[in-house]
Amino acid sequence: MYHRAHKGKLATSSIVEVDDKHNLSLAYTPGVAEPCRIIAAHPEEAYNLTWKGRTVAVISDGSAVLGLGNIGALAALPVMEGKALLMKKFAGIDAVPLVIDSQNTEEIIRFVEHVAPNFAGINLEDISSPRCFQIEETLQNIGIPVFHDDQHGTAIVVSAALHNAARVVSKPYNSLKVVVVGAGAAGLAISRMLLGLDCSSGSCRSIKGIDAVYDLIVVDRVGALYAGRENQNIFKQAIAGMSNKSMKTGLLSEVIKGADAIIGVSGPSSITSEMVRSMGEKSIVFAMANPTPEIMPDEARKAGAYIVATGRSDFSNQINNVLAFPGVFKAIIDGRLKTITPQMKIAASKALRDMVQEPTVDNIIPDPFTPHLAEKVAEAILSVA
Amino acid sequence: MYHRAHKGKLATSSIVEVDDKHNLSLAYTPGVAEPCRIIAAHPEEAYNLTWKGRTVAVISDGSAVLGLGNIGALAALPVMEGKALLMKKFAGIDAVPLVIDSQNTEEIIRFVEHVAPNFAGINLEDISSPRCFQIEETLQNIGIPVFHDDQHGTAIVVSAALHNAARVVSKPYNSLKVVVVGAGAAGLAISRMLLGLDCSSGSCRSIKGIDAVYDLIVVDRVGALYAGRENQNIFKQAIAGMSNKSMKTGLLSEVIKGADAIIGVSGPSSITSEMVRSMGEKSIVFAMANPTPEIMPDEARKAGAYIVATGRSDFSNQINNVLAFPGVFKAIIDGRLKTITPQMKIAASKALRDMVQEPTVDNIIPDPFTPHLAEKVAEAILSVA
Repeated sequence: MYHRAHKGKLATSSIVEVDDKHNLSLAYTPGVAEPCRIIAAHPEEAYNLTWKGRTVAVISDGSAVLGLGNIGALAALPVMEGKALLMKKFAGIDAVPLVIDSQNTEEIIRFVEHVAPNFAGINLEDISSPRCFQIEETLQNIGIPVFHDDQHGTAIVVSAALHNAARVVSKPYNSLKVVVVGAGAAGLAISRMLLGLDCSSGSCRSIKGIDAVYDLIVVDRVGALYAGRENQNIFKQAIAGMSNKSMKTGLLSEVIKGADAIIGVSGPSSITSEMVRSMGEKSIVFAMANPTPEIMPDEARKAGAYIVATGRSDFSNQINNVLAFPGVFKAIIDGRLKTITPQMKIAASKALRDMVQEPTVDNIIPDPFTPHLAEKVAEAILSVA
Repeated sequence: MYHRAHKGKLATSSIVEVDDKHNLSLAYTPGVAEPCRIIAAHPEEAYNLTWKGRTVAVISDGSAVLGLGNIGALAALPVMEGKALLMKKFAGIDAVPLVIDSQNTEEIIRFVEHVAPNFAGINLEDISSPRCFQIEETLQNIGIPVFHDDQHGTAIVVSAALHNAARVVSKPYNSLKVVVVGAGAAGLAISRMLLGLDCSSGSCRSIKGIDAVYDLIVVDRVGALYAGRENQNIFKQAIAGMSNKSMKTGLLSEVIKGADAIIGVSGPSSITSEMVRSMGEKSIVFAMANPTPEIMPDEARKAGAYIVATGRSDFSNQINNVLAFPGVFKAIIDGRLKTITPQMKIAASKALRDMVQEPTVDNIIPDPFTPHLAEKVAEAILSVA
């Protein structure tokens, strides 16, 4: 009913007067010829003379939408419209949802290239792994300011939440035994960030001087990733080589035993009560599949979890990209950034965790409605730009 | 300054409440999953559950922008943003400007195909001839609701204006000797409409029972089009075979002699005082190049023109697409139309001319600010849909 009442959520609006012939002659012909001529001579003036300077696109092919999977372009539109809306709400950014009726990697790259001049930045969204890595990297390399939110937005927020959760359970962050469930876009990006890695073209390097966890294992449907395992694409291989240093094998139910934190970015019901019971003491459970978490908060708590977080707005501890992407794109717009570096992501994550001065079991991460949240994230990013 | 004050003219806005966690859980996760699921099962529900049902795209490759020519995608953005704004202002339609960073015909077709699911209709704009014909027809044939405004919007408004001008000079419309200057998208589409032709794939057929002019000559840079002339693309050939029945040859300065009406859709200074002086009595001059007309109104009047019109908002008799496209897209949205037929264009044109009850020398076409103009155009189109 909420979506049906007004046919969706977003609209366009005028920010200039067009109420008489004089204004019409400025907005349209003949007046509009002048900014056209200026931009033809000085392309960068498009940032000042059109909405490009304050507008981003939220682009998806509908191949990996929430926990719903590959539901296609059209069915993904409500999510993209929602993200565009939140860009406006939380950062004052004008954003346009665009679904692409193609799931061909080359065609998606071409599409984004062709549409890029309209926007100050491109938010890639809900594009399945491992295609998303190639798409983002290719676009990045040709100078288009892209940010794949499912990877980096999620990683920024999870990293902030995990730091504060570690404080609550009084364990040093670096010493946490972490299991990441799901080796898609979010799972690999979270693992890279927690391990302090900078990855591209399927290889990873440690970033110096970074606060990183040491003991992290990524689990996919087949089981734990480890160096040399079969059935691993190059992106999984790269992480496998930098994680799971004790070379554990087996399914999640094995690997989770004794873990301090489990981070679910997979799908409904992939974490059971029994698994949670097998974790170490004061265990941390982030069950972030949307809309249905890997395990419901009540069930996780009953099984002994000390800190529970989900991606949803209707439970406490909402670990959701909405805490990151509005601020990230505000930084891209304000700083005309072409890329978001690992250092910028770390700065954004620190800003988020510092917004919770005294973390508690039910308050490890700021509320999305925290005043000036996006501004602070943007400032943190720009401070290292 | 008008364009610089706010960085362009258009913005996005929210039409739903997102001011607390409850609303956030509806707009975003978990609530947004429900419309996604519904659309995955029933694609047509996207019209009701997202902004698709009230949104169009204004798409250009920047290859033929106003009278400025091929200034490229980015420099065309102010025009597309302006059209999107006018969609909102005059018809309450949400519209998104999208320039495409490619001028390859196949790539443009692919781009529009990929982006089409987002929108109820696609306004093609400022794409050079003859590529525009192939692009529009191909997209039309695969079921995408496209409308190339430079062709059809212009033709609708010119046809209305010429009917009323004929009344003012007391000459029967059908008997007018008309010269069209310019054989691009607008020139050919105007000629098709005035001659009462339905054209596709480079061939034209007369539409029965249509009020059409008999004596019409199209002139391009080489001179008059006539059957069998060299240097004519298939679209010019098709019109040549159905016009210029007396097979006149030569440049505009020859062909214009004795004409009742000249319709300029070419570029600045292509019509001279001398040419206007050589026209028949009570001559009609539509000088519609933007921003600089083929001849300025003062000069045309001094040379004896009886009725003068331009495309600009700052002179009387503004023959401008803004009178057509908001109503056309309102009809496409309200009627979920897949195509705008010649009959619909005629109905729209009649609606426009009937809005001027007593045409005069300075009032042959309604003012863009006429109340309910777009609604009336849309109603006329839907009445023959």
